[in-house]
Amino acid sequence: MNLNLPIGIFDSGVGGLTVYRALHERLPAERFVYLGDTARVPYGTKSLSTVERYGIENAKFLEAQGIKLLVVACNTASALALPAIGNAVDIQVVGVIEPGARAAVEIARGKTIAVIATEATVQSGAYAKAINQIDPHTKVIERACPLFVPLAEEGWANSAVARSVAEQYLQNLREADLGALVLGCTHYPILRDLIGEVIGTDVPLIDSGEATAEEVRSLLESKQLRASQTTRELEERRLCDDLDHFYVTDAAERFAKVAERFLGTAPSVLEAVEVWGHDELRTY
Amino acid sequence: MNLNLPIGIFDSGVGGLTVYRALHERLPAERFVYLGDTARVPYGTKSLSTVERYGIENAKFLEAQGIKLLVVACNTASALALPAIGNAVDIQVVGVIEPGARAAVEIARGKTIAVIATEATVQSGAYAKAINQIDPHTKVIERACPLFVPLAEEGWANSAVARSVAEQYLQNLREADLGALVLGCTHYPILRDLIGEVIGTDVPLIDSGEATAEEVRSLLESKQLRASQTTRELEERRLCDDLDHFYVTDAAERFAKVAERFLGTAPSVLEAVEVWGHDELRTY
Repeated sequence: MNLNLPIGIFDSGVGGLTVYRALHERLPAERFVYLGDTARVPYGTKSLSTVERYGIENAKFLEAQGIKLLVVACNTASALALPAIGNAVDIQVVGVIEPGARAAVEIARGKTIAVIATEATVQSGAYAKAINQIDPHTKVIERACPLFVPLAEEGWANSAVARSVAEQYLQNLREADLGALVLGCTHYPILRDLIGEVIGTDVPLIDSGEATAEEVRSLLESKQLRASQTTRELEERRLCDDLDHFYVTDAAERFAKVAERFLGTAPSVLEAVEVWGHDELRTY
Repeated sequence: MNLNLPIGIFDSGVGGLTVYRALHERLPAERFVYLGDTARVPYGTKSLSTVERYGIENAKFLEAQGIKLLVVACNTASALALPAIGNAVDIQVVGVIEPGARAAVEIARGKTIAVIATEATVQSGAYAKAINQIDPHTKVIERACPLFVPLAEEGWANSAVARSVAEQYLQNLREADLGALVLGCTHYPILRDLIGEVIGTDVPLIDSGEATAEEVRSLLESKQLRASQTTRELEERRLCDDLDHFYVTDAAERFAKVAERFLGTAPSVLEAVEVWGHDELRTY
């Protein structure tokens, strides 16, 4: 395995940029190839078989670009499709659910853990399963918060509207004595401050993307797969610079606009691609 | 052409049910085949070429079911893809933009017309073009309201949150002296009362779906294509009864749940299908 191959990251759209940012911060010597499946976003309201199919197509595309590791940044795809994706490609695949669950269990120390996520992730129960596999006694409450994604993408993260929505979604969770709240969707870190204020500043927030970035760092170290770059190269690295390559399946312009909103900068290298085989329209 | 063939309707998802309802009310003798492309919803943030491709695949699927007329209920697909869809199928295709534009011009009598719609519909300028083709002097203001769709689907149409969102989106429009406000997305009629209160009860609201249903009725009459049914059959017809067939490309359960919220009843006959050719995953 070539150490200097990039790390692949896919997400249903733009939300996975929060995971890219977390990885980039911790692993400045690495290059990244990011795929946002903007033609089929969102995954959070879709079914198991559809999310599996989309996930496999994305993974195969990234594998074909030449990557040393694949990070499934999308919580929904991690929750529903990680085994299917793992079977479909030859490289190692890391999802965001298990790292997020592990970080939550560690910090909650037996107290109740709440998970906020998309409808599909909540329905899958993937976080509860992962948490209870580590600690069968921890109580887990899961809550879907579908409006958080469009609020983040609209740039309304700090609005009065977002606060009302958060108060409504998190109302019951505020009454529980929480040991941790997991941000189980890549968009939610954009609303992190607001969520923290509404849930109470004493409740630790777990960003699954950050937990995953930590895990990827350990993994690369233990497998001696960290990239070798000179100090000078490292000093010059910036978020979204031209060492990282961004692909979208649709609407690159909108992706760049929301990326700017999320990261404060837009990708230097951004390309629209197709990751599925649709050359032959089915005829009836 | 067999008069008793059903009318085909497609939408990006569940929103087109408001158009189905408008058609069903005006044309109780007709049967309908509805396709919601829930595997790829929403279209409103996607690009021209992608919306064209999805629209053509949906249209070909419905044509293959045997229909006498196709209604493109989705405003985004009507705005971006109507010519491409018309070229791809042999049956007559009716979109929602032109009927909505005509109804608005008629009622506004030269005063400014505002159009609220998805990002893609607003960017296309399709409503402004259609309105100015009828009356080049009418001023048109277009405004994207992306949060209205998730608010409607979440069942929050009458919430304080929805009111704050509407006040924010419609603020500038309230200062204009409007002759009409076009609800240029199939979800917006669900928020009709709220939008009416916020914009001012003196501003006529145009539901493009209702305008389209009127147009379809005239069209069928002028072409002598109205279905023949006995009085008894007509008396027994109900919304979503088993004479109408509903297809979705994904997540039928969620569709039924939101349909219940929108129409007060769920489809009797609801089936998940695939409308695209993806049998061969592209290999890299």
